[in-house]
Amino acid sequence: MNLNEAQNVVKQRLTKSRYEHTLRVAKTAEQLARKYNESIERTKLAALLHDYAKCDQEEELKRQIIQYNLPRELLNYNKELWHGPVGAKVAKEKFEILDEDVLHAIYYHTTARANMTKLEMIIFVADYIEPGRNFPGVEEVRNLVKVDLEKAALKVLGNTIMHLVRKGITIFPDTFYAYNQLTKKWEG
Amino acid sequence: MNLNEAQNVVKQRLTKSRYEHTLRVAKTAEQLARKYNESIERTKLAALLHDYAKCDQEEELKRQIIQYNLPRELLNYNKELWHGPVGAKVAKEKFEILDEDVLHAIYYHTTARANMTKLEMIIFVADYIEPGRNFPGVEEVRNLVKVDLEKAALKVLGNTIMHLVRKGITIFPDTFYAYNQLTKKWEG
Repeated sequence: MNLNEAQNVVKQRLTKSRYEHTLRVAKTAEQLARKYNESIERTKLAALLHDYAKCDQEEELKRQIIQYNLPRELLNYNKELWHGPVGAKVAKEKFEILDEDVLHAIYYHTTARANMTKLEMIIFVADYIEPGRNFPGVEEVRNLVKVDLEKAALKVLGNTIMHLVRKGITIFPDTFYAYNQLTKKWEG
Repeated sequence: MNLNEAQNVVKQRLTKSRYEHTLRVAKTAEQLARKYNESIERTKLAALLHDYAKCDQEEELKRQIIQYNLPRELLNYNKELWHGPVGAKVAKEKFEILDEDVLHAIYYHTTARANMTKLEMIIFVADYIEPGRNFPGVEEVRNLVKVDLEKAALKVLGNTIMHLVRKGITIFPDTFYAYNQLTKKWEG
């Protein structure tokens, strides 16, 4: 699947505002890919497809989690997390994308995970800082990513954990493992 | 070991300010035990011994973690967590306390864990709210514990996680599992 095809399938699939968010993430991710020497092609492909399943209904996402044999544990956590793993499976099975790094960047773009690759971090951070985002803390991440991609990813993780705790929402284990792994790395 | 003996061993072992903290925790825990129908005797024993190893030097704590075959993983986390597990082992091996609930209350008083017993929650919360504590958020926990011990424990966990994230410190997995377990319980 080339970039034009990817852009067309998400344009068909997503709401207008979600599609526009996707284009902003793709642009932001491309800037980060240039800065951090990641492949532009793979970065844009992952960015365009990252929210492919975002506008699916809850029942449709559940069905796909079971159909694709994704971890059932996902169903015990916030449904906002489900579209990442489902989107990655669709990208593999339906769009025949075989690049594991692209698939992982889609899969983990909401939860993150320990030991993320550069591409995974680029999509994770770009999704948080694209110019349409204006929640508290986003400006600090925009500044951090100018100097260090990992520190920016860690700040996103910390902000996300604090946001979830304030709201009384469970934290998916991968998010917590990612926070601990990057914190440990920068501690010592 | 009776309560007088427990009070004497910690008086000998701890600094004056740590000993006074211990007495305040014991008093607060006793109030919670009365309110929530827990054994006063077991509660006071756990409270008196909870910080037994708190004033041990870092190297001494490390030595005991290895000697008592405690999880080596502890050594990868904040040393402030080590005195709980070490104190529990001393209580068992040296003071011959066999009550598993008392031992667990000592063991998990800093990290907490999923599915805590009533006694474990009493010690965990009492340690946080004893009258000498005055950090932000403590008053909310004091009010919550008047109505619900689990909700108070969950608030302590949330405050602790946010404090650690703000400081850029790793979070011990048991703390995170405890947060998720109580959050899930109160979500639905």
